[in-house]
Amino acid sequence: MKDAVDAYKGLQKLLAKRGLASVEAAKQINAVYAASVKALQKTTSRIDLRSLVSGKKYFALSAGKKASRAVNDALFAESDSTDLFLDALEDGDPKKFETALRKLGPDKINVAVYTVAMSFFCVIDLLKEGDQKTPGTFFEYLVGHLFARLLGVSPAKRVAVLNLDMEGTLPTDFIFDLGVDQPKFHVPVKTSTRERVIQVWAHQRVLDGVYGVGRFIGTPVIAGETKTDKEKREVIEICLPDQWRIYQAHIAQLRRIYYLDVPIAYKGLNDVFPRIAVKPGEFFFETKALISAV
Amino acid sequence: MKDAVDAYKGLQKLLAKRGLASVEAAKQINAVYAASVKALQKTTSRIDLRSLVSGKKYFALSAGKKASRAVNDALFAESDSTDLFLDALEDGDPKKFETALRKLGPDKINVAVYTVAMSFFCVIDLLKEGDQKTPGTFFEYLVGHLFARLLGVSPAKRVAVLNLDMEGTLPTDFIFDLGVDQPKFHVPVKTSTRERVIQVWAHQRVLDGVYGVGRFIGTPVIAGETKTDKEKREVIEICLPDQWRIYQAHIAQLRRIYYLDVPIAYKGLNDVFPRIAVKPGEFFFETKALISAV
Repeated sequence: MKDAVDAYKGLQKLLAKRGLASVEAAKQINAVYAASVKALQKTTSRIDLRSLVSGKKYFALSAGKKASRAVNDALFAESDSTDLFLDALEDGDPKKFETALRKLGPDKINVAVYTVAMSFFCVIDLLKEGDQKTPGTFFEYLVGHLFARLLGVSPAKRVAVLNLDMEGTLPTDFIFDLGVDQPKFHVPVKTSTRERVIQVWAHQRVLDGVYGVGRFIGTPVIAGETKTDKEKREVIEICLPDQWRIYQAHIAQLRRIYYLDVPIAYKGLNDVFPRIAVKPGEFFFETKALISAV
Repeated sequence: MKDAVDAYKGLQKLLAKRGLASVEAAKQINAVYAASVKALQKTTSRIDLRSLVSGKKYFALSAGKKASRAVNDALFAESDSTDLFLDALEDGDPKKFETALRKLGPDKINVAVYTVAMSFFCVIDLLKEGDQKTPGTFFEYLVGHLFARLLGVSPAKRVAVLNLDMEGTLPTDFIFDLGVDQPKFHVPVKTSTRERVIQVWAHQRVLDGVYGVGRFIGTPVIAGETKTDKEKREVIEICLPDQWRIYQAHIAQLRRIYYLDVPIAYKGLNDVFPRIAVKPGEFFFETKALISAV
């Protein structure tokens, strides 16, 4: 498993030098993934978990006494399409990149992103109990890179704030600035949110307040909301749909909420008022529509 | 130290039965405090810490290899006035209670509340590394009881939310409902806030949105914002004053932010725009002014 961590450290160094949008970043993400798969194949066995989430199957990987977080069986696939997706990412030609993505389609891409992320998450789970930071940071790199490639710009993590008596900047989640007279994307990236999710709406509110409503398109990307009871080997999803509706009505309006593993309770928010568009990772296919929609 | 934890468990049981406003709760809080002081006197020694906070002196209590959080020397006093304050709390007669408070004045009351809270925090720090939940819950009980006695009502922790298509309630921090045609108090209680503070403004925003601006007076109560480097034995305060100004300008307006140990960087927010009234625990002396102010 040390190889996977070394590859991750290599990614951190590369990003510090070259930023999130480079093709080299894709190559290094691929290296993290390859090392993770190798480590997991060598040292782990699969434990089926009892899923209390209707229609979803989960397992954990275990090594010695340690067990990983819950992995969604239908979304985890070390398959050709995951490799094809990573190959596409490694191609520096934007036209070829786009064609390859279109060929794969949103579902296979969602599986590929989930598999790459979850492989490394499991490595860290098995190495160091309670380390939430390393998986979280890797997931930020991964999603940040995907958006940077998709939109053709590197993100900022601060925005300037105008105030009559002070000049300053506000630390934010990723902001992708598409230039003059274009909207900007506000992309918080989280492995899960729980009750901390109100921060995402609050940050959107600040951006709306400082720059005016509509300038920033809020599209958080979240891996999932599962929780595993390790004793009972049971998996549940922790969701607060009624609270989300209140936040969407009264704090700010998020345009999309992307989940790799969409929680059942949040799927229903597409159909009630206020509508919240909760979707799997379709961002590769609808950013243009979001940009031009009024 | 077991006695202090037993007294705390007794407090939990009592509150479940009798609610936060009862005089019995004051007696049990006093019991937690007395057991904590006794345990700390018997088993701990004092370590002076290097304070990097200008004008403040901090120490920690240690027992064996464990050390407590940083304690502000000027605010921690097992003195007569702490006892007088607790005696006043135990008096069920509201008139006598008020007279006793007025006699003590805000500074001595602030010291008393800090001392009661910090004594129990230190016991828990020395018993169980990394337990943030027990101190946090005790502090909620303590401040919740003080507000309940002061305002003469027990708080709720949910508010009803009206929506055309759904009926529901939103979990909140303490809400003290003073009745028809009176404002209500929204009192989040935290031992410290760090970057999680944006939640407090976001909850205020939801209340303003659901019920209209001005119905809820937001007055969070926070113990302090110190952080101790245990290796170097150094104390700093972690503050984000520029972010607070942006939250106060763009998310919602909090009327007061009460700190027992007011951080230096936040004190300055009283004098800039947007003004944020950050004060020591003066709530016993200004709630009436807040209620009648427009």
